[in-house]
This record gives sequence, structure tokens and C-alpha cells, in this order.
Amino acid sequence: MMISDETFPVEPWCIRETELRLEQLAESESVFALSNGHIGLRGNLDEGEPHGLPGTYLNGFYEIRPLPYAEAGFGYPEDGQSIVDVTNGKLIRLLVDDEPFDVRYGDLRSHERVLDMRAGVLTRSADWTAPSGKRVKVTSTRLVSLAQRGLAAIEYVVEAVDDVLLTVQSELVANEDQPEPEDDPRVAAALDKPLEAVQHEVSERGALLIHRTRASKLTMAAAMDHVIESDGRVEVSGDAGDHWARTTVVSALKPGERLRLIKFLAYGWSSLRSPPALRDQVAAHIAGARYTGWDGLVRSQREYLDDFWDCADVEVDGDADCQQAVRFGLFHVLQASARAERRAIAGKGLTGTGYDGHAFWDTEGFVLPVLTYTAPWAAADALRWRATILDLARARAAELDLEGASYPWRTIHGEECSAYWPAGTAAFHVNADIAMAFERYRVVTGDDSLEKECGLAVLVETARMWMSLGHFDRHGRWRIDGVTGPDEYTAIVRDNVFTNLMAAANLNYAADACTRRPDAARDLGVDSEETAAWCGAVDAVHIPYDEELGVHPQCEGFTTLREWDFTSNTEYPLLLHEPYVRLYPTQVVKQADLVLAMHWQSHAFTAEQKARNVDYYERRTTRDSSLSACTQAVMCAEVGHLELAHDYAYEAALIDLRNLHHNTGDGLHLASLAGGWIALVAGFGGLRDDEGMLSLDPQLPSGITRLRFRLRWRDFRVTVEADHETVTYTLRDGPHGELTIRHAGQSLTITTTEETRVPVRPKKALLPPPEQPPGREPTLRQRHLDDAP
Amino acid sequence: MMISDETFPVEPWCIRETELRLEQLAESESVFALSNGHIGLRGNLDEGEPHGLPGTYLNGFYEIRPLPYAEAGFGYPEDGQSIVDVTNGKLIRLLVDDEPFDVRYGDLRSHERVLDMRAGVLTRSADWTAPSGKRVKVTSTRLVSLAQRGLAAIEYVVEAVDDVLLTVQSELVANEDQPEPEDDPRVAAALDKPLEAVQHEVSERGALLIHRTRASKLTMAAAMDHVIESDGRVEVSGDAGDHWARTTVVSALKPGERLRLIKFLAYGWSSLRSPPALRDQVAAHIAGARYTGWDGLVRSQREYLDDFWDCADVEVDGDADCQQAVRFGLFHVLQASARAERRAIAGKGLTGTGYDGHAFWDTEGFVLPVLTYTAPWAAADALRWRATILDLARARAAELDLEGASYPWRTIHGEECSAYWPAGTAAFHVNADIAMAFERYRVVTGDDSLEKECGLAVLVETARMWMSLGHFDRHGRWRIDGVTGPDEYTAIVRDNVFTNLMAAANLNYAADACTRRPDAARDLGVDSEETAAWCGAVDAVHIPYDEELGVHPQCEGFTTLREWDFTSNTEYPLLLHEPYVRLYPTQVVKQADLVLAMHWQSHAFTAEQKARNVDYYERRTTRDSSLSACTQAVMCAEVGHLELAHDYAYEAALIDLRNLHHNTGDGLHLASLAGGWIALVAGFGGLRDDEGMLSLDPQLPSGITRLRFRLRWRDFRVTVEADHETVTYTLRDGPHGELTIRHAGQSLTITTTEETRVPVRPKKALLPPPEQPPGREPTLRQRHLDDAP
Repeated sequence: MMISDETFPVEPWCIRETELRLEQLAESESVFALSNGHIGLRGNLDEGEPHGLPGTYLNGFYEIRPLPYAEAGFGYPEDGQSIVDVTNGKLIRLLVDDEPFDVRYGDLRSHERVLDMRAGVLTRSADWTAPSGKRVKVTSTRLVSLAQRGLAAIEYVVEAVDDVLLTVQSELVANEDQPEPEDDPRVAAALDKPLEAVQHEVSERGALLIHRTRASKLTMAAAMDHVIESDGRVEVSGDAGDHWARTTVVSALKPGERLRLIKFLAYGWSSLRSPPALRDQVAAHIAGARYTGWDGLVRSQREYLDDFWDCADVEVDGDADCQQAVRFGLFHVLQASARAERRAIAGKGLTGTGYDGHAFWDTEGFVLPVLTYTAPWAAADALRWRATILDLARARAAELDLEGASYPWRTIHGEECSAYWPAGTAAFHVNADIAMAFERYRVVTGDDSLEKECGLAVLVETARMWMSLGHFDRHGRWRIDGVTGPDEYTAIVRDNVFTNLMAAANLNYAADACTRRPDAARDLGVDSEETAAWCGAVDAVHIPYDEELGVHPQCEGFTTLREWDFTSNTEYPLLLHEPYVRLYPTQVVKQADLVLAMHWQSHAFTAEQKARNVDYYERRTTRDSSLSACTQAVMCAEVGHLELAHDYAYEAALIDLRNLHHNTGDGLHLASLAGGWIALVAGFGGLRDDEGMLSLDPQLPSGITRLRFRLRWRDFRVTVEADHETVTYTLRDGPHGELTIRHAGQSLTITTTEETRVPVRPKKALLPPPEQPPGREPTLRQRHLDDAP
Repeated sequence: MMISDETFPVEPWCIRETELRLEQLAESESVFALSNGHIGLRGNLDEGEPHGLPGTYLNGFYEIRPLPYAEAGFGYPEDGQSIVDVTNGKLIRLLVDDEPFDVRYGDLRSHERVLDMRAGVLTRSADWTAPSGKRVKVTSTRLVSLAQRGLAAIEYVVEAVDDVLLTVQSELVANEDQPEPEDDPRVAAALDKPLEAVQHEVSERGALLIHRTRASKLTMAAAMDHVIESDGRVEVSGDAGDHWARTTVVSALKPGERLRLIKFLAYGWSSLRSPPALRDQVAAHIAGARYTGWDGLVRSQREYLDDFWDCADVEVDGDADCQQAVRFGLFHVLQASARAERRAIAGKGLTGTGYDGHAFWDTEGFVLPVLTYTAPWAAADALRWRATILDLARARAAELDLEGASYPWRTIHGEECSAYWPAGTAAFHVNADIAMAFERYRVVTGDDSLEKECGLAVLVETARMWMSLGHFDRHGRWRIDGVTGPDEYTAIVRDNVFTNLMAAANLNYAADACTRRPDAARDLGVDSEETAAWCGAVDAVHIPYDEELGVHPQCEGFTTLREWDFTSNTEYPLLLHEPYVRLYPTQVVKQADLVLAMHWQSHAFTAEQKARNVDYYERRTTRDSSLSACTQAVMCAEVGHLELAHDYAYEAALIDLRNLHHNTGDGLHLASLAGGWIALVAGFGGLRDDEGMLSLDPQLPSGITRLRFRLRWRDFRVTVEADHETVTYTLRDGPHGELTIRHAGQSLTITTTEETRVPVRPKKALLPPPEQPPGREPTLRQRHLDDAP
């Protein structure tokens, strides 16, 4: 169900839930998920039940599952990979006298949860009267440490209102029951009890469990330790079994007295290291936690975030929804990546089991652009992950009879896990998306060490893949046939414009990198003949254009395909109501494709082409993918449809706070959350970098009075502030104190000595605002229409 | 493994196996399969073991199995259907003293099996000495009655060479163990014990078993009865369990004495009728068998076949291989269809579990053309089957958001069972293939009662499907996008020439039929506006043509796709070694597609176009499908490459006798066997009927000295005899004694009063014989090259 505005009242720095809505539990668990990119804890209630989807995740920790095919084919991956709900250490159960604290029973007088995006903690306050009539106030504060990667911690405080005997059971539980998977291909298959017991140990105030997955043979350890304070007498005991461990604290309290429990929770996993090594590793995390203490963990969390927000925050005056949502998005993007350290950033981060926990092109296409400008170290680590799986991508290319490397469409560990090749293997553009991310990192950060360390090999091997996939036709045009672009409603096509432009860019990046690093290129077997061939393909790349209509067909022939019948077939998302065999050969678009090409390869289109193309594709795009609204925002803004762009920005940013795609319960849409930032910064800020230069061109819609955002560029921090008349650029840091950027298409030098103020260049729309397919007007606008008398 | 020439020495009317080759057991079981289109018995040894694949089938009797998808999609069929190995009644086990007769033990002094295609029986003679030294001669003769549909029978004779105590156990056994399925998508999934016991009964000399399938809820009954003669004293007893029944005959024989057992075997099944009704039904079959007696069954079998061969036989002087093979093909085509009576004719008939026992377009495209000219009643029944599943096809069309009816790509019962839509649902041409088969039946037989009975509705509903699938583009061309033609190496294409021509033909047939039957058309809701729209689409149908190359692209853009790299990627069949993602966007062709269009829609191409197209596609066709060689034979013959055509005719006809596709063990390739006839009659005889007229144009390759074939046309029987100079037409029957045909493009009237002799029109090839992809020269030619010094 859609989450109404009242569920999370709009506040600038917090997500607040003022009452518990059991029917939206799964969604709130995703929204309140905490992560540092290594450990992910869904916002499950401390006591574990009720829950929507219990979830504790470790980045990269997965189980193998077979991929079944009724009709198999060569090159189809046989093994899938699924994220595993690992040992749950969030559990703290409470008994008041002999009655378990359960929000479904007794009288829940109040219940509030708050995610504080500056503090990086989730707090919960419950005022509960047991069926017996005994009342307690429970407050918990939970964090996953950004500073200490292997650690999470919970402060759990119970205040007695009546005379009570409290029993607190703090637990580790492996192999939690999972809810049944839905009959929707996008919802991940559940895995049944994937963890095999290796070892369990109980210490004075804590315990340890070690488990191993059956098929992937990964070993994990979870440990807990506690600090206990009580105004009453306390007894502590511990016990454990193969799949559970428990520290029990009993204390009798009088009215006004409190029991306070600090739970330190440590995780570690490895495919190589032995159980004793992992045991010691998590013991060390626990020791570090005791040394730092709860207050120290809370403090370092805030410091980490202060540093982040200083050069990441986006201020959106006039639109409180977007203000909150863009911070929410940035916070979760950071959470998904901060300490991932050479593991993938999954499509849903570590917030749920959606998409099986796989990483897609979303990472490079939507998440890394944000990180590159706001937390470049995290972008670099994500790119290093791609470099670590280069050999697997080489093997996949060989299996596909291609040169070089072909990256998986979806994966956790690096092997291709897509079981439907027309919208998987055929989407070769993922390779160019990765190449672009490497190039952007180099251009934006000015750090070319990553290219030297690992990027060059990725650029070269993906370039080789493109050369073997494309071909010159008899008219000398370089073409790429049989591929699927971003739009999954038209697949296995010729000359997808997005793919062809991105492939050409990939070849250019590789050729330029080889020129920069001739020795390293030679070590990779690249000679001048090879780079000349790359440039030859770039020069000859075929970009179809429909002269009659004056628009770019998304792929060869697209504009002469049948139109979708929007008079009758409008149950969205269409893929759940219409067969691919009917969707593919029509002019219906799931998500920005040609329009995305105009964002990422902005220089390849004229202003008029952009305006006409936006107009054409707006009418045919259903936005059935969460990867569309932000791009439509960016391009609508560029061609002057600022109000429409604002609607799309809202939709991208609010996707999970309002559950706009009805599946937030499976995990957050990281790319769309990043897209909230993109919509604002690239849309209303006009940020482009596809020509290797920081390019800005702010203009605001009527509903935003002031937009202020921060970017890192080389060694500088740049602040861009725009209102409806003026743009103010502020430059901090940097070795030279001066930076030349492009403002509104003109060169502009800004300095660290003073702010630079320039007027906004007003954008005039060439065409009137386009209509969308029936029922697919942007959500915000739809709501306004519904509200109209 | 390939079957060598020595396995089945070439004889004109028999398939003879002179020694038992255990490593080719599965292949020989397929070759020696007996069927009447209702019951199918693989050529398993009487004693059941050893076996390649045990198999007893009832047409239409299937079990449901789930179709798994790792990534599901709307409109994907959830349930598959698999042919079931039903209760095995072929089993007759023999004990010589106390040693079981098993060819793997003792001394098999001789073993011969002969399939007599005029008698319609399979005989087996074994001369065997048991490990104990006792010798017997066993002779069995097996038939599946063409005259009495529910019956099979076996004469089993044991002659003692030494003093022996014989124990014969004649059995019914349900749920036989199946061998493991291979890791090849084309090999059917095995089903584990699909039959649930309903009832078993033992009578004086026989028994009865009734079973039901778990999921499809079909009930079947198998009954046996025996006539026993012995030169020695005989004791007979019977017993049974849930899944087996046994009649045991014990007799002591002296040297030269014989024990003779006649086993009558009856089958029946139903989705509706009760077990008692089925019990009575098979009891009636048994009673009929006892009344007719073994000799009567043998006699009626030969009479049925005499009648068939009289107007079906093809004589091929000079090529003994093809002579034998074309009769083998005709025999199995008849066996698969003779008494199918409104059940499907499966791709492998009732000879094995290959393709799960499904029927495809093979039936209408390849098998029915042969039956229409040789056994039209069987063609009519097969078409009636399509009419019975029209409502399921309507439902499928509705699911696909199409008008009218969309027939399944593969099925037993009528529901779509294809789990890979790009080479399943997208192959909409099956609908036009069905329409063409109805039209051919009407034109060739002159019987328009079938159109009235059920054909009109099929034509109208398939026409409606095409109208909703195709569309007019902005240039007024009628196009069909997103479909797959016969060639499964290039799928989901625009304007497949074959599909577009066939769809237009479908629309024409429907429009003409509605004109013929205005009242019936009106009952189907057809008005003149609708038929006018059909004709409008026909007039505007887009047939792409490559002016530069002077050839028809198989589909829009085909001739500008990348060429397949035949210098390195030549492991055939390519689909087992290359991914679809690489195959689809290249100019590599699995099977005749454009070339098939030139056969079936011959009038739509000029002679020069045919010559150039054959030349172009020959070089790019791998013949990885068994549905290709016959069509290549036909079109190579038409354009004057007669020797090449001869090679392809050999390959089509000998596919199973030589195991050319290495999977004859899973069942015979009915369409390719029919293709042997097509290659000779349409290839060297020049038979065409796409313009509603009997058109012939014989010319022979050097290796065939005389070709003589028979056709039914309207009420006539026509015999065509050709040598290298002269064609002789003989007309029999007919109400008027005179028939106008087309000979070599010219009108020719032949009469019942005398033979008509005309000279052969020599065909001059416009182009030299083309080459094939490396390693894909036709089998015969390859062998000759290998034999060269």
C-alpha cells in the first residue's frame, strides 16, 4: 500500500514514525534500516515480532541456489546467488513479570521511532502496559557503526512505571523463518535455513555463534557482549544451542527505576579464514567496542556523518518533502557504501532481500555519480570491487565467445546470475556504465591512481568486448545488434542509441587511458593498431535518426513500431499484465533509455533534438522501473519543463518514504534514492560531466525557492546556491584557489577568495509540456489533480 | 552414434537388423516402433531388458508437470505436459529351465529383427543357448492393429532344441523406471512413476490394470488375454498387484516341439469415462481380438497397408537408400496418424519421449502435406484436432491481448507448453501453417465439408489474430514485428518474410472462405468490413528486399547483420555451443526460413529471386534443425542444383535409419521422414499447390534413374512417372475422367483413358552450386568426399 504523508511527518533531518502501523511494518523496516555497507540491520522491532521481513545482512555473504529452466540454453547460468538473512543479533526480548513485551498485546500507549540522519541512530520509545496491567517505558537506540566496520550496538533502557520484575533476553538467532515469497518476479526467493552450525560459545555476559552456508561454503561469526546497569538487583546468565545464544538479565524495579543494557554486536565472515580466526576477529570487534564504549560509538558516528554532510548536503527551500527525501536518499546511499570496501553495492543496499540482494548497473549508473561527488572514497571502493571480478567477467566473455570482459547483469559474488538473458546478458551496456564510472571518478576527483591500480584493465577489457560485439556493416557503419538497452520493454534490438553512444564512450575512455599509460597498456597487450581500431569504431558508430519525425529512435526502427494501446492496456506495471511478446515490438518504454542517453551523453545531442526527443518519449514512457523518474526529471529540466521535472524529482526522491512502487517492504530503491539527488543537482543544478568538465546550469521550478548543494571536484569543495535569479558559487580548499567551470554553457572561473555570483540563464521550452501515458502522470501532479475540487 | 549402413541393410520393403547391437538399442527401438496413431509401442525386446528407453504410449495421454522459471513473466505457461510411458503390455519374459532369456547372457547364436512395411508387423528371431547349455529358438511377431484401434497383438513362439522346461510370463507392468534425462534441452524430461493404481483384475488367461495420472487425472486401462498352444503339457496361472499383472505359462518341451502364445493387448483411456466404463471398453477390444483371431489381425493389417501403398508408394530407381527410406518415412507417418482420430500427431509420433511428446507446426507444415495426398482421412482428423482446441487457442490469444485465436507452439492437450517464448509464443507462424493445411486439404481433396464443419472458424480466428498482431506503419505498409520465423537462430524480428507471406495467405484463405460461406461467416461475426480489412492488409504486406544484394532478407535488416564466424565457431548444432545472445544478431540460419517461404509461397518469388536467395541462404544455413534438409532439397531442385538436392533428400529421408541427428533414440523425426517424401515429390517431382492447382515439374538428379509416385487429387488418383527425358502421367478414378494440371508451368489435361507423356523441362541453374558452412555439407556428399582417395 502507498504510505500516506502522515506516516512519516516531514522533518528536515529525521524520519519520524509517530505510531506503529502493523500493516506497514515491512516498509518501515526498510526505511529504518541501518547499515554501514558491511553490516545491514533492517528496522525490525527489538523483540523480533511482529515483523514484516526479518533481516540481518552481511555484504557479500550469500548462498548459492539453482536457477531452474524448463528449456535450458547454452550459456545460461546454472547457479543463482541469494543474500542470506544471517544470525539476528538485534533481538532483545523483554518480559514484564511473566508477560512478553509484544506490541500486539496489552496496551501500547505510545510508540515512536526516529531515524536521525545526522546522528546515524535509530531510536524507539514505547510506553506499554502489559495485559496484567504493569506498565513500562522502553527506549532503544540502535546504530551500525560507520567508524568501526564490524560493529553494531544497541542501548536498551526499560523504565518501570509500576513495580515489575523484568527479564531481558538478549539473543543471537540463526535461520529465522522467512515469509513466503510473493508471486512477483521482482521479489527475491526466500532461502530456507541456509546456515549450518559450526560452533557456539557462551561467555559471562555474551555469546558467539559460528555458522557456514551449505553450498557457497562461507563462514560467518556473530558475537554479542553486554554492559548492564540497573537501579535494582541484577542477575545475569547465559546459554546457547547450535542456532541460538542468549544472555538473560533479570532485575526487579520499583516505579521510576531503570534497567539499561548496552549490547555490542560484532559480525565477521570469510570464504577463506578458519572458524578460530573468525572467532578471534569478532572477539576483537567486541573488545574494541568495550574500549570505545557506547558514548564513544555514538560520538564517532556523528563525527563521521558531520564530515559527510559538510560536503554532501542538499538544501531545498520551499519543498519540505524533497528536502527530507534527498537527505534520506543520501543517508541511505552512504549507509549502503561507506564501509562496503570492495564489495558490491546492491540494488537495495543491505535493506532487504529484494532482487536477491544483487548488484546491477544501478550502482555505476545512479549510485556512484552521487558518491563520486560526495564520498569519493566509497565510489573508489565500489569500482575496486568491479576490478576484483574482472577475471570472472573475462571468463563470462569467453563463454559468450567475446573478447575482453563482459560484466554480469546481476550478481553478488561476480558470476552472472541473470536467468532471463534478453533482459540480462543482452544488456551489455552495463560494461560501458562501469567504464563511465571509472572515467567519472578520474575526472571528478582528479585522482588517477585508481586508473593505474585497476581501472585501465577494466577499460581495456570492456573496450575489447565492444569491439567483438559490434561490427562494421557493408556501408562502413559500426553497429551493435541484438542488445537490450535500459528500456526492458523493447529488447534484443539493433543499434540502441544509448548502448551505441555508451560503447563509443567506453572505447574513447580506453583509448585515452592507454595513451596516458602506454607502458601499462602494452602490458595488457594493447598496441596502436588496437587503439586505432577502437577509434575507428567510435568514428563510424551508427546513431539512427528518424528524419521524418525529427527524433532519435531508441533503436533502429523504433519509431515505426506499433504504438501501445493506451486506451485499454494501462494496468501498471505493464510487465505484470502484458506478455513480453506484445511489449517488445511496440513503442512503449519502461524507463528512460534514449532520454538517459541524452543525460549521460549530453554533448551528442542538440538542444532541439533534446526537446523533441523528450516530447516524444514522455508520451510513451510508463516509468514501470524505479530507474526512470530521476532521469526524466533531469531531461525535463534541461528542456525547460521545470514543473514536470519537479514532479519527477519528487517521485524519485520519495519512492520509499511514500512506497510509490509498492515494494519498499523488500528493501529500499538505492538508485532511485540516489536519483533524488541527481534530479535536484543534475536537473535543477544542471550538473553535467560528460565532457570532462564541471558543468552547471541551475534553474529552479516555481516550488523551490532556493537550492543549495555541495560537490567535491578535484581537491576543491564547491557549493552551488541558486534561487530564481542568481547562482552563487563558493569554492573551498584546493591547491590553487581557482577553478574554471562551465556555467550555463559559458566558461566561468571561480575562486576560493570570494563567492561568484552570476545570473540564472532562463530556459525556454521549445515545446509545451508533454503528456504522459494515461495513468502515468507523475505522482505529485496526479495527487494535485486528485485534490482539485 | 551414427548408425552405419550395415546396421539396416538396404531392402526395398523391409527394415532388417541382422544382429543385435546393444549400443544402438535405443535407436533401433525407435526405428522398430509400431503404432496406429492411438497406441504406440517402442521396439523394446519382448523380455523388456536390456532396453534403451522403455516405451508404451497412448496418444493424448499425458501428465502435467510444472514449468520452472528462475525469472517468471506474464503469460508464461505454468504447466507443462509430458507424454507418459503407460502400462507396458509388450512384456513376455521367458525362462529356459530356471534361466531367464536375456540376450546379455548365454550364447546368442543369431538375432534378427525385421520390420515389414507391407505387412505392418515386426518380427524377431533369436537362437539362444542358455548359460546352462539349453538351446531354444524364439520367434515373435508384433503388430499394433490399424484396423482395430484399441488393439495390439503378439505371437510368441518358442521352439525347443534341447529338452527344456519353459516358463513364459506375459505381463502388464506400470510405472517402469525411466533412464535419466540427458543434459540436452531437446530430450524430454522423464516422469517418475506417474500412474496411480485404480484397479487390477486377473482372469483365466489374462489380466487388467486400471491407472490414473496424479495431476492430469486421466484414467487408462490395459488388458491382456492369451491363446496358448503347446506340443507339451501346459499349466496356466495368473496373478496381479497394483502395478503389475502376470499370466504364467509353463510347459515342458522335447527337441523340435513348440510353445505358441498369442497375446492380445487392449488399451483405452479417458478424461471423462469411469473405470468400469474403461474396463468394459478394453474387455470389448479383447473380445473383438479373440473373434478376429491372430490370423485375422495379420490379414486386416496387410489389407489396410495394401490400400495405403496403392496410392502412396514412391518408387526410386537407382537409389536404393532413398527407396527404402522414403517407404520407411511413409510407413511411420501413416503409423503416427492412421487412427489418431482427433488427437495430435506429435513431433515424434508415438515412438519416444523426445520433445515431451508434443505436437508442433511440424504436423501441419510437413506431415499433413504428405497425408493430404496419400491418406487424406488422416489429415482431416488431424485438422479436426486443431479445431477441437480452438477455444484454448482463443483463450491464449486473449491472454496475449490478441483477437481471435493463437495456437500453441507445443502441446499435447492444447494449452501452450512452450517455456521459452522467443522460440515459442513468438513463432506465431504456426497459426498460418494450420490455416494453410486446412486450405490445402480443401484444394487437394476437393472436400469442402471440413471447412464447413470446423475449418472456417479456424481460418477466421487465426485471421483475426494476425490483424491484431500486425499493424500499418506511417507509410501504409502492413508489418508484423516481434515474431520468430522458422529459423530459431534469429528471433523476435521485424517482418520475417516467411511469416508475413504466410499471414497474408492466412488472411486470403479466410476472406475467400467467408465469401464461399457467407451465412457461416456471419454467424462468426464476420462482416464485409472485416474481410475488407483483411484484404487491405494482404495488399499492403511489407516484404523486405535487399536491392543492393538482390536477395530477400529473411527479416528486416537481416542481410546487414554480422556474418557468423565460420572460421572458428563450427561446433554443431550451434545451439549447444553458442549462446542465443550471439546467435540471434548474426546471419546464421538454423533451418530453412526464407527458403521455406519460397517453397510454400512459391508464386511470390521470381525464378531469379529463388536462385539468388537459395545461393545466399545455402551459405549461411547450418541445418541444425531436422526440419531443414527436405526444404533445401526442394528449393535446390527448383533452382537446378539437382545433385545437391539429392544429397539433401538423402539426409531428410535417412535421418533416423542413419541417426544423422544423433537423437533417434528419443524417437523418430516424423517431419523429416515426411520430408523424405517431400524432397522427392516436391523436389524432383516439382509438386506445388500454393496456387490451388496441381502443379508438377519433374526432373531427376543423375543418381535416380526413375521416380514414380502416386497422389490423390480430388476424386482422382494420379501416378507420375519420370525418368531423365520423359514424364508419364496416369489418371485413375474420378467422376469426369479428365483433369487439368500444370506441367512445367504449362497447362496440361490428363485423362483416365490413356497415359500422357510429356518431355522433362530441363532446369538450368542460374548460379553454380553454392557451398555450405564448413562442416555442414550434406551428409551424403560429405561421405563421398571422405571416401575419395
